[in-house]
Amino acid sequence: MPIAYAIKEALSSSSMIRRMFEEGNQLKAQYGADNVFDFSIGNPDIDPPPAFHQIFVKLAQDDLKGSHGYMANAGYRDVRAALAQKVNTEHGVTVDYTHIIMAVGASGGLNVVLKSILNPGDEVLVPCPYFVEYRSYINNHGGVFVPVETLTDFNLDISAIAEKLSSKTAAVLINSPHNPTGRVYPAHTINALAEALNMHGNTCGRFPYLIVDEPYRELVYGGIPVAPILSAYNESIVVNSYSKSLSIPGERIGYVAVSPHASDKQLLLDALIHATRVLGFTNAPALMQRIVAQLTTVKVDISVYERRLAVFRSILDQVGIRYANPEGTFYLFCHVPEGCNDIQFIEHLKNYLILGVPGSGFGKANWVRFAYCVNESIIAASAQAFKKAMQRFLKST
Amino acid sequence: MPIAYAIKEALSSSSMIRRMFEEGNQLKAQYGADNVFDFSIGNPDIDPPPAFHQIFVKLAQDDLKGSHGYMANAGYRDVRAALAQKVNTEHGVTVDYTHIIMAVGASGGLNVVLKSILNPGDEVLVPCPYFVEYRSYINNHGGVFVPVETLTDFNLDISAIAEKLSSKTAAVLINSPHNPTGRVYPAHTINALAEALNMHGNTCGRFPYLIVDEPYRELVYGGIPVAPILSAYNESIVVNSYSKSLSIPGERIGYVAVSPHASDKQLLLDALIHATRVLGFTNAPALMQRIVAQLTTVKVDISVYERRLAVFRSILDQVGIRYANPEGTFYLFCHVPEGCNDIQFIEHLKNYLILGVPGSGFGKANWVRFAYCVNESIIAASAQAFKKAMQRFLKST
Repeated sequence: MPIAYAIKEALSSSSMIRRMFEEGNQLKAQYGADNVFDFSIGNPDIDPPPAFHQIFVKLAQDDLKGSHGYMANAGYRDVRAALAQKVNTEHGVTVDYTHIIMAVGASGGLNVVLKSILNPGDEVLVPCPYFVEYRSYINNHGGVFVPVETLTDFNLDISAIAEKLSSKTAAVLINSPHNPTGRVYPAHTINALAEALNMHGNTCGRFPYLIVDEPYRELVYGGIPVAPILSAYNESIVVNSYSKSLSIPGERIGYVAVSPHASDKQLLLDALIHATRVLGFTNAPALMQRIVAQLTTVKVDISVYERRLAVFRSILDQVGIRYANPEGTFYLFCHVPEGCNDIQFIEHLKNYLILGVPGSGFGKANWVRFAYCVNESIIAASAQAFKKAMQRFLKST
Repeated sequence: MPIAYAIKEALSSSSMIRRMFEEGNQLKAQYGADNVFDFSIGNPDIDPPPAFHQIFVKLAQDDLKGSHGYMANAGYRDVRAALAQKVNTEHGVTVDYTHIIMAVGASGGLNVVLKSILNPGDEVLVPCPYFVEYRSYINNHGGVFVPVETLTDFNLDISAIAEKLSSKTAAVLINSPHNPTGRVYPAHTINALAEALNMHGNTCGRFPYLIVDEPYRELVYGGIPVAPILSAYNESIVVNSYSKSLSIPGERIGYVAVSPHASDKQLLLDALIHATRVLGFTNAPALMQRIVAQLTTVKVDISVYERRLAVFRSILDQVGIRYANPEGTFYLFCHVPEGCNDIQFIEHLKNYLILGVPGSGFGKANWVRFAYCVNESIIAASAQAFKKAMQRFLKST
């Protein structure tokens, strides 16, 4: 057996999505990239802000001695201090650099957190739908992935979460703004969740961590506030990245922030640093650390996404595709029309050169996800394709 | 219990080394950095080659659209193609880009490889002494770390390895040029190892992988050749990085290369790509991928290390400290004098402001490691401190 059984199994179960991506590339080669409406991948296409380019060029020209060497596994102290200020503003706390561990993107940060806290058999509750990779991240470190249903508007169902809490619950992992639904959890929901976790902790003696993955924090529309977490619940951990807010996902830069009120904070911070090292991340990329420290108040022009969202919504409205109310991110999570499942719907759309992702991968069959991090003109041009594709469903109703 | 038991245990066992590092920093604050002879850390201090700076500035100025976005998890195709050429030259094979998976440094690459191949309880044989982190990397993915003794000159003991091979052996993990001994395994040793693995595979039906971690490949002295691996054994995997050859360890860029003769090659490559994704690496940092692709024939000026080695050897010779014959890397692995163990010796040297690492961490008590990636003048200035420190041992013999 040349590879691990678990990986072999994962490869065969994920082959459907990979086949779709490959087919998408084939379609583009065949019909031209502009004629394929590829809403499958969440790869931000907006340029990084001009300030990113400026600091990038400056650091390259300076190229200070030792600036590409190892630093502490947790990252540069001054970078962590700059991000602590950002975290304080966003989360209503007062933390210093020691509470910030630089990470190789949010995906790296989540693995570091889960490695640090999970004992074999520990459970992590995850609201459904969920980001596809969470299951793997939890399994990597011996944890058990426990999906929890959400309300019909995809807000957290606090009673459903409370019902699944047990002495095995190491953490509740939420994502807000939410991929794939675009949902932003309001402060009263976060507070209700904190209350449920505290009640459980007081009864059971084990307070689960609340881990919040928030790489879309800056991508919200209509001024919707993203609730603070670190001030809402003592045992909370925030994981964030610059992949979306600065459009630099390929550079793998993010961070983990720990609540100043965490009960055994120093031990947790030591564990996070240790996990960064032993998982082979070693440290977040040096140059990108130094860049993002200069850009804590900078983000991409989200009005571009907002305009695209308006165009996309009007197309979906016209053809009668219903979707979750998008408050943030660059995804639209849509109902599959009556008479087919998500995989069939995605296959059907492909005939009209429209690419999306079946909801099954996110734990929600009968839904599909479209990512609108593609040029507005391509979204607009997809209107005709959507109309043709949806005729079949209009006739049958 | 706020963190994982295994991490808590690891934290307490690694606290000795961390305390030493902290004490080292305190000593520098107290006595001035130039008065402390810090040979503890393998953080290359030589500047990256001028060609690195040139391409860095050029890519920053161009800052091409989309150049910081996601690419395939395995990395950019053209970068992988450039590295395939390098691998072909070094390993006497003919591989194309599909055989190269870009990694977040060699430590990231090793975790990707081990995640891909290890089933629970699978054993990985590792010659002793060994790089401190290998044990953690293997444990991360459910494997069992099995140290194997080496010969007195630290060359591989093929019979000792052959004796430990069993149906549980998933891999043999070697490091050449070797940290901490500086040993470079000659081709006849690699070939003998390949023969032993093939004999075992033919008998047992399971051919272990031969994983070679070679971040020091470019750091060899006196023209000693580094043996090819991928052409020597079918089931071989090379992990390399640019941390040492370009002095950019903080940037986390490396790669994994798979032998063209591996028996189930495509499955292994698919597994490596999958593991890159699910472990949260996602991809190697985009910018650094594009930089190293331009620098496949460039390396730091190793004559600097060679001169330091000569100075350091003459100091050790003068004070009667014996060491393993250094053929590569920037480490000197030294015998502890009679009458104390490695930890006591390191503590004793600290009184003279000399910092090194006890061999116990590498699986070899009674040895210590000195890293000479520090300025030659500091090495030269340590002569007096070494003389004073060693008087105690001269008297007692």
